[in-house]
Amino acid sequence: MVAFDDIFRRQLRELFVWRRDVRHFRTTALPDGAVERLIATACLSPSVGLSQPWRFVIVDDAARRRAVIDDFKACNADALNCYSGERAGRYAALKLSGLEQAPAHLAVFADKASDIGHGLGRTTMPETTEYSVVAAITAMWLAARAEGIGLGWVSILNPERIHEVLDVPTSWKFIAYLCIGYPEAECDQPELEKEKWEHRRSAQEFTLKR
Amino acid sequence: MVAFDDIFRRQLRELFVWRRDVRHFRTTALPDGAVERLIATACLSPSVGLSQPWRFVIVDDAARRRAVIDDFKACNADALNCYSGERAGRYAALKLSGLEQAPAHLAVFADKASDIGHGLGRTTMPETTEYSVVAAITAMWLAARAEGIGLGWVSILNPERIHEVLDVPTSWKFIAYLCIGYPEAECDQPELEKEKWEHRRSAQEFTLKR
Repeated sequence: MVAFDDIFRRQLRELFVWRRDVRHFRTTALPDGAVERLIATACLSPSVGLSQPWRFVIVDDAARRRAVIDDFKACNADALNCYSGERAGRYAALKLSGLEQAPAHLAVFADKASDIGHGLGRTTMPETTEYSVVAAITAMWLAARAEGIGLGWVSILNPERIHEVLDVPTSWKFIAYLCIGYPEAECDQPELEKEKWEHRRSAQEFTLKR
Repeated sequence: MVAFDDIFRRQLRELFVWRRDVRHFRTTALPDGAVERLIATACLSPSVGLSQPWRFVIVDDAARRRAVIDDFKACNADALNCYSGERAGRYAALKLSGLEQAPAHLAVFADKASDIGHGLGRTTMPETTEYSVVAAITAMWLAARAEGIGLGWVSILNPERIHEVLDVPTSWKFIAYLCIGYPEAECDQPELEKEKWEHRRSAQEFTLKR
């Protein structure tokens, strides 16, 4: 049995405070095996019915990376068209991915067809399969930050295109495309807040009693 | 700027290893404000476009709790019918929720209609709204375990019924119903593995290169 003390809890809180969605990476390579170690940590996460639906794809091939970057650019241009006026200007000025600089690319999928876990917990809420994969990514994100490694989650992508580019089984649902590497800078404030795109609200605003 | 050392990283790994989906709770009340503190920690999580779509509902009302428990029982009976033979016997023997004993109940929703974050990052993958809420739950889960508090995620529920019981806005999507309290025991092995429902696989089995 393991207990944790106040010092650890304070540091854990610091970890939550300093974990960022990173878009500015140094191009320095990660140590050998760093990504695989982060994946192993992710696999310690909870999953519905112990289904372990996470599927990780380390993307090293230059042509595939280029195709992902091209898809991001196309999707980001489409997204820009949804804004107008001052908001469009602000959107255009944001750096929304570190795909070009990050030394490691990792795509993450949820295997919707796997029978690991024998379907337990997934009857009324099959989306808990995807949720299990998100929990694993969250763990990996925190573990990375504790090693000084930054992670950026790119969602401005066309899932069908990513599927095609990475040539993975059709039963896999695309969850996230992650840029991983050393960040250019550390910060305790989300970049979208610093850039005045949006500000953080207090927990009370989001809490009801029933 | 904050850096973390090897001692912290070792403890963080222990936290991942000892975090469990808890179904066996002591009925001892949590300290005043404990749930609110965990919610505040959850709100430090990443969210797509800084949308902060998490909505927390602390469920204290006895009649509502009873209605949730009744829904769990009905859904669990239906789920049992999906199994046959030896697997059905094993399913029936599992304790799949601590709803009756846990001193705190917390429902978590994703607000799909909120314009916080101005839609950024959600055009091609609107499901990242739900994913942001799952990331917040994961953070809360880890923070709870660091305080010796257990959390159990109940997914064997009918989302429409939970919506009705808790009387929340229709734009909110039900993500999770959480039991929170002190666990009866600590363990570094998932209960479903201990009960031989399923076993854990290695990360290598789930990793591809492209």
